[in-house]
Amino acid sequence: MLKSPFQIVRGRYIPQMPDSLAGSVKIVEGNKTQSVADREDIERIFPNTYGMPVLTFEPINEEKIYPVVNVGVVLSGGQAPGGHNVISGLFDGLKKCNKNNRLYGFLGGPLGMVDNEYKELTEDLVDNYRNTGGFDIIGSGRTKLEEQAQYNKVIENCKKLDINAIVIIGGDDSNTNACILAEYFIQKKSKIQVLGVPKTIDGDLKNEVVEASFGFDTACKVYSGLIGNIERDANSSKKYYHFIKLMGRSASHITLECALQTHPNITIISEEVEKKNMTLEDVVNYISDIVIQRAEQGYNFGTALIPEGLVEFIPAMKKLIADLNDCMVKLGSKIDSIESNRERRELVAGELSPDSAEIFTSLPNSFANELLLDRDPHGNVQVSLIETEKLLIDMVKAKIKKMRKAGEFQSKFKGQPHFFGYEGRCASPSNFDANYSYTLGFTTSLLISEGKTGYIACVKNLVKPVSEWIPGGAPITMMMNMEKRQGKFKPVIQKALVDLNGEPFAKLQEMRKKWAKNTMYIYPGPIQYFGPPEVSEQTTETLKYEFNV
Amino acid sequence: MLKSPFQIVRGRYIPQMPDSLAGSVKIVEGNKTQSVADREDIERIFPNTYGMPVLTFEPINEEKIYPVVNVGVVLSGGQAPGGHNVISGLFDGLKKCNKNNRLYGFLGGPLGMVDNEYKELTEDLVDNYRNTGGFDIIGSGRTKLEEQAQYNKVIENCKKLDINAIVIIGGDDSNTNACILAEYFIQKKSKIQVLGVPKTIDGDLKNEVVEASFGFDTACKVYSGLIGNIERDANSSKKYYHFIKLMGRSASHITLECALQTHPNITIISEEVEKKNMTLEDVVNYISDIVIQRAEQGYNFGTALIPEGLVEFIPAMKKLIADLNDCMVKLGSKIDSIESNRERRELVAGELSPDSAEIFTSLPNSFANELLLDRDPHGNVQVSLIETEKLLIDMVKAKIKKMRKAGEFQSKFKGQPHFFGYEGRCASPSNFDANYSYTLGFTTSLLISEGKTGYIACVKNLVKPVSEWIPGGAPITMMMNMEKRQGKFKPVIQKALVDLNGEPFAKLQEMRKKWAKNTMYIYPGPIQYFGPPEVSEQTTETLKYEFNV
Repeated sequence: MLKSPFQIVRGRYIPQMPDSLAGSVKIVEGNKTQSVADREDIERIFPNTYGMPVLTFEPINEEKIYPVVNVGVVLSGGQAPGGHNVISGLFDGLKKCNKNNRLYGFLGGPLGMVDNEYKELTEDLVDNYRNTGGFDIIGSGRTKLEEQAQYNKVIENCKKLDINAIVIIGGDDSNTNACILAEYFIQKKSKIQVLGVPKTIDGDLKNEVVEASFGFDTACKVYSGLIGNIERDANSSKKYYHFIKLMGRSASHITLECALQTHPNITIISEEVEKKNMTLEDVVNYISDIVIQRAEQGYNFGTALIPEGLVEFIPAMKKLIADLNDCMVKLGSKIDSIESNRERRELVAGELSPDSAEIFTSLPNSFANELLLDRDPHGNVQVSLIETEKLLIDMVKAKIKKMRKAGEFQSKFKGQPHFFGYEGRCASPSNFDANYSYTLGFTTSLLISEGKTGYIACVKNLVKPVSEWIPGGAPITMMMNMEKRQGKFKPVIQKALVDLNGEPFAKLQEMRKKWAKNTMYIYPGPIQYFGPPEVSEQTTETLKYEFNV
Repeated sequence: MLKSPFQIVRGRYIPQMPDSLAGSVKIVEGNKTQSVADREDIERIFPNTYGMPVLTFEPINEEKIYPVVNVGVVLSGGQAPGGHNVISGLFDGLKKCNKNNRLYGFLGGPLGMVDNEYKELTEDLVDNYRNTGGFDIIGSGRTKLEEQAQYNKVIENCKKLDINAIVIIGGDDSNTNACILAEYFIQKKSKIQVLGVPKTIDGDLKNEVVEASFGFDTACKVYSGLIGNIERDANSSKKYYHFIKLMGRSASHITLECALQTHPNITIISEEVEKKNMTLEDVVNYISDIVIQRAEQGYNFGTALIPEGLVEFIPAMKKLIADLNDCMVKLGSKIDSIESNRERRELVAGELSPDSAEIFTSLPNSFANELLLDRDPHGNVQVSLIETEKLLIDMVKAKIKKMRKAGEFQSKFKGQPHFFGYEGRCASPSNFDANYSYTLGFTTSLLISEGKTGYIACVKNLVKPVSEWIPGGAPITMMMNMEKRQGKFKPVIQKALVDLNGEPFAKLQEMRKKWAKNTMYIYPGPIQYFGPPEVSEQTTETLKYEFNV
């Protein structure tokens, strides 16, 4: 494997670990736990894995060798920086627990467990991936295991490899799945343990016990570095508004964090838009007002951060999309037989409810056309393909043009769209994420060796120096509630949206008017893996504000 | 000015300088020079600044204090990392030459010299911008000074501030302009000296004396770091082809450099496309063939690098765009009065030459529509708005779809477009660029103090350690030839396109088939300003291959 000088040097980094994991440990049990909501339902569905205590570790003064275990690990869902370090921490931890322990990686996500696609993760192999980004060591996948036949297949395949425990590294859905598997295995009298590791780059797997998910720090640093560069460009050429869409469909944590790191002129937070019941027009007006205010001061440039999921958080747009989907089913192939975009739009507008029709006809034509054309195989509008950053530029441009015609605005407005997603998901983990994910993996090896199942690995005290971090485990059931999915109520880990009463958002609220009116950009630079600790060892603003550091 | 921890730490970096500039120096004159072509014409147009010798410096063992000078500096054109360090090197150099020297910055590009918009660059101000990206210290602009009335205004404004010398930091056009000004001032018996500093992020200002322009190293590192992340993502999720368009309208140096740094599956070089007289279809076929070849091995993912200027280098597309512009003038407002896109396309296709019409009708409809709709105020097609990365995805997708229908291809093709430009232009200069641009600025102060005009600052031996770099000056006229601009022959600095016989391209040629078929990505990581020198002190692959290091 040919490597860059950076890969070679970074490969040698030795992740820091909490002091408590330096030697042997014993488990300390906390109080029994409850699920965050719907306790009766969750307890009924998870009779064996509900209510277990939170666990921490206490150093002991004797060498402890655990019985041999074979472990299978799976990467589930989208890539997040640190995945390879969870695996190397897990590997090193297992070898420390017992040098005869073995680690297998199931390939291509959860489906690898069903299809028995795997490879053994040997020392040589793991060494090649230490401190690297990506999930390429064993690949990843998004398939959810939902059928008992699949679960039984997993048991069967684990038997073949003599696997005692499965580790699922994934987001809220994947950890929910880990818990369902853990419970199922107990009920089937299988001894296979199932442990989860919290991963979601969007930052929406977060609660009392999971302070952050790994990869969030790195991704936000990648994006913020780029946003800073763009801000500097805006402030140098002084002629463009850069509309920067950022990863995060289900929550705006990334946008909020990047705003706190870079002080852009405009920051849209989906959760706020939903709470205030804002329309798309309201969002456009909010942006336009800032453009106008800045123009009055002679600033015809700026930066706006837009969360990827915005459109789905605008109640009226959400309704429009649902109506469009219904309408499209109704119209069937008729819609595609029409050649003229205008006629197609008119036909659809006539079928929509008056409210939705009004919104639909107010959209820029090109955007309305796209909604009708880019549909998935089921005929649904593909929300993920909506170029919100361009839509907003077009709509602000249209508004400004109208004002210019009416003599209400004399300046210029030129927009430049950007979207940052793939750029950050596979970056080499920052020192924080390298340490955190490695510690999570190492912790998981102890939870396995101590015979636990239905637990998620967690590390608390993350704003403190690594030596003071508190690793442990939390029962997955405690994070769950019941939510409607495809028409049925199901137990799922509660998603963490941006807390509009929380400190990180309060900080944005406090500053955003100043940041809008003035040009107060700061430039975080790219991730530094070396150099002074004030640059290389810091974590997110979100964590700092949440824990009042 | 609120700063990030990175800004604070990086602000303290002290750029390295060649040993030869440590103490006082004397000028050493080389041989008389000739222009690269059209010698008679260039000599006729520049009677006073033609043929001057290349200059280098020799250390002397005495303290040399130069007469007091006041200097005005201008940033011209697009931002490039290092602009602020040229200014800080110039400032420090001037203060070393004589502590009473003063430096003024003309604001917002060359027009600032005409409008007398300026600010004095004091120590405090300069200190705030050391080692930072951007041109925001004095802003930049693209206005070309072409009228004698403007030149005379510059003389007048310089008199007001008692300015003895002007420094123009810019690309090929701006340095051509610097030389025209230098010549004009001599002819008008003005004593104002004019010096140039080579800046162009695209890397197209390069020749015998200018080994590289500052900012190229940094920008390519920013882009390559991101490309590496995307490659890792592609190789982890294994389901997307990422089409990454990179800055560089007039030359493909950036794309070539990034390819050498990251080993993508597909690299398009505009100069090669032009040389081989390839059509858009040829390019699509080249890409599709690689997609097909990889699918046969089970790889349904990949990365393709596309230079921004590609469309303008495809001879048939260049012709089509010229024909479209003519056609649009001819059709006038008629074209915009048509509501239906199809009718509009049919009308235009009927007016084009048969060759152009064939190409036009072969374009994806959405793209053809855009060509007709997005026009500049003169009605011309806006080539810079062409989303080549999306065009190519659409065309490859169409070809693959056809093959799938014919049963010739069974796999999937999904494209993801990216464009990296603004992300890199204002990054904090890498150590190489910080040192290089500072040295260029410092060198310029010596050329001024030694009374030179019509020179460009240059530094040779860039692949050697900084201590061995050879700073000096070269007469701008030696880089010139005559080229047709807007119908007239004008003296201009010859643009450096990618040399298809050069070593960097030869390396790509040697490797590209292997990189296409296999997955041999390497991941350069983000720019490191600290840490081991093999990571933080390296410069471009282009320079290494050009100088056989």
